[in-house]
Amino acid sequence: MNSHAADNSVGLVKPAIFRSSAPFTLQCGVTLPGFELVYETYGQLNPARSNAILICHALSGHHHAAGYHTPEDDKPGWWDSCIGPGKPIDTRRFFVVSLNNLGGCNGSTGPLSLNPSTGAFWGPDFPTVTVRDWVESQTLLANALGIRQFAAVIGGSLGGMQAMLWAMEHPERVRAAVLIATAARLSAQNIAFNEIARQAILSDPEFHGGRYREADSHPERGLSIARMVGHVTYLSGDGMHERFGRALKSGDRTGNNQVQFQVESYLQYQGRSFSRRFDANTYLLMTRALDLFDPAADAGDDLARAFAAAEARFLVIAFSSDWRFSAARSKEIVDALVAARKNVASAVIESPHGHDSFLLELPRYFDVLRTWLSRLADEVGTGTRALDAASG
Amino acid sequence: MNSHAADNSVGLVKPAIFRSSAPFTLQCGVTLPGFELVYETYGQLNPARSNAILICHALSGHHHAAGYHTPEDDKPGWWDSCIGPGKPIDTRRFFVVSLNNLGGCNGSTGPLSLNPSTGAFWGPDFPTVTVRDWVESQTLLANALGIRQFAAVIGGSLGGMQAMLWAMEHPERVRAAVLIATAARLSAQNIAFNEIARQAILSDPEFHGGRYREADSHPERGLSIARMVGHVTYLSGDGMHERFGRALKSGDRTGNNQVQFQVESYLQYQGRSFSRRFDANTYLLMTRALDLFDPAADAGDDLARAFAAAEARFLVIAFSSDWRFSAARSKEIVDALVAARKNVASAVIESPHGHDSFLLELPRYFDVLRTWLSRLADEVGTGTRALDAASG
Repeated sequence: MNSHAADNSVGLVKPAIFRSSAPFTLQCGVTLPGFELVYETYGQLNPARSNAILICHALSGHHHAAGYHTPEDDKPGWWDSCIGPGKPIDTRRFFVVSLNNLGGCNGSTGPLSLNPSTGAFWGPDFPTVTVRDWVESQTLLANALGIRQFAAVIGGSLGGMQAMLWAMEHPERVRAAVLIATAARLSAQNIAFNEIARQAILSDPEFHGGRYREADSHPERGLSIARMVGHVTYLSGDGMHERFGRALKSGDRTGNNQVQFQVESYLQYQGRSFSRRFDANTYLLMTRALDLFDPAADAGDDLARAFAAAEARFLVIAFSSDWRFSAARSKEIVDALVAARKNVASAVIESPHGHDSFLLELPRYFDVLRTWLSRLADEVGTGTRALDAASG
Repeated sequence: MNSHAADNSVGLVKPAIFRSSAPFTLQCGVTLPGFELVYETYGQLNPARSNAILICHALSGHHHAAGYHTPEDDKPGWWDSCIGPGKPIDTRRFFVVSLNNLGGCNGSTGPLSLNPSTGAFWGPDFPTVTVRDWVESQTLLANALGIRQFAAVIGGSLGGMQAMLWAMEHPERVRAAVLIATAARLSAQNIAFNEIARQAILSDPEFHGGRYREADSHPERGLSIARMVGHVTYLSGDGMHERFGRALKSGDRTGNNQVQFQVESYLQYQGRSFSRRFDANTYLLMTRALDLFDPAADAGDDLARAFAAAEARFLVIAFSSDWRFSAARSKEIVDALVAARKNVASAVIESPHGHDSFLLELPRYFDVLRTWLSRLADEVGTGTRALDAASG
């Protein structure tokens, strides 16, 4: 169990803001006058500045990946099980950077920010952001932190796409890339589920064409349905069966009108709770970035060619019951890396928990990560023990 | 190709109404003062009344399974490829009965009917209907048609559940049951998708708590999203990939705001067109009937025991890429039938078209159906040639 003062916790952490005041042109052609990214760091950057790891978040993630913001917090960051002293991403050896992406809703410039040219909320007018835009904005954050090369860029799902593109677009800045439960492009079925989620949001009359803040409303029901759709695709059929089966929450099978299965109640709860903490315009923007990602398309539909310039070593991890980004999608990546003569290790982890597995503490998964990253740490050198102790 | 006057078409057909004026108590405990079922028949009932086949429809189906209603119709009934002279369900040999289920929205008593005790539309007050209620109401229709025993009860998906329950509850009235792309109970994942569809409908402000007719409105957007969810589960991932891939309908991958993938446009079209022809209260009722179906639950969770009384022979058909009711679910049924020492044949048909395969004209599927039913026709005897010709 984690606790705020546990030996293997990064403890209390404070978000920081990176401000880039130079104009930043997005792939869609729109130029932002500048932007802010909120981020956190854990561990110490070594004198050679060679031990930094960048964590890229997935669809609904944010900068707060590990530790606690206040002593009263009852929940740590979203990947606290994996990041900390002695954990697979070991903060005694690595300096970990985790940010909220551009277009996000947790403090970075996005739909909830003010558009400086109008003085009003960006809202639905925030421009389309792509995975490439995220990678480029992350390079500016790295520059500001004095990191020329990351020891590793790591991400699951949409985060894995960012790690992949980092290795393709900035070969000299990535020593290693860890691609977890991801794909080189979305399938038609993936896009279909994203589109259903978007339609649920767009159809909610509280959405007000994206100007819900001005209307003092919030498309909670649409966002909730969007999350329910996502959530079902994050779990496996077998995992849901084991967890919920056909157990009833209320009513009975004769057709009592109040009948409710436990799985329904669970999904509704997940949807509602998500809709209270997330921004609808950001959800639209993030799902579209997922849809648009397709680095092979710029290389004659040849993923191996898209990887040609990469210099990183790769670790590609998939989970047996993940049907959103199945092991077959990871195999496409591994095959392309092999064809491109890159250094690649891969593992398919047995797990009944579907796509969500990448966020769970699964022994073999963490062993693979720990061992692979530990060799990397040996190479890049770490901060001194004294410094580590001081950061506790 | 079918055409109205083609030799293998049942040609022009006219729906009929069956009125049951006796009180009818549903499984939920509510008693309807009576009900109406709209149905069609194709072919001739033989003098022994032994060659009748009952077609049970799925979630969004209805009574119009074959032929045309007017010479101007550009589309035949929903299973016209399978029902007709010389087709697998051969109307030269069988007398085919196809109805719209109780609670439906195509002419049978349901939410769109008037509640005789209030004079207002039933709407959301229409009682919960179960698969058992459908089977019981179908026995009354069979009585009215003078059919003591069906040569076969046939259905796909939710229709297969009805065929299954017919064989369990009325063993002496079913000579053969054909269960296509079905399951003995829904999984937690199946229920989850149904619940997302229901939430989409319930969240639409045009739903008005189910009293949209009185409000002169229609929850078109909610129903459309519900159908989009269903539709994605009817197709296979590979099938969607082959059909749509990542082809764009508009915009480009740099993040043009107008970007739309073809699969999105297709799903939206399917959703809109469905929402114009279907009733939201019926959709809620039908999905709930699916959720509640679980004959093994009444037999100590032992499906073989649930089949104990059945006398029918069974044909169980699944499709390789169906993930809504996978071949593994059909195998559960076959295993239970074998354990119960029943006469069962089964086939898994290779098809990339997912659950939708059961509505398609696939050579091996139709061959299996045709051969199996032809032996049945030999047994039960058919109408005379002269009668057949007169029915043209």
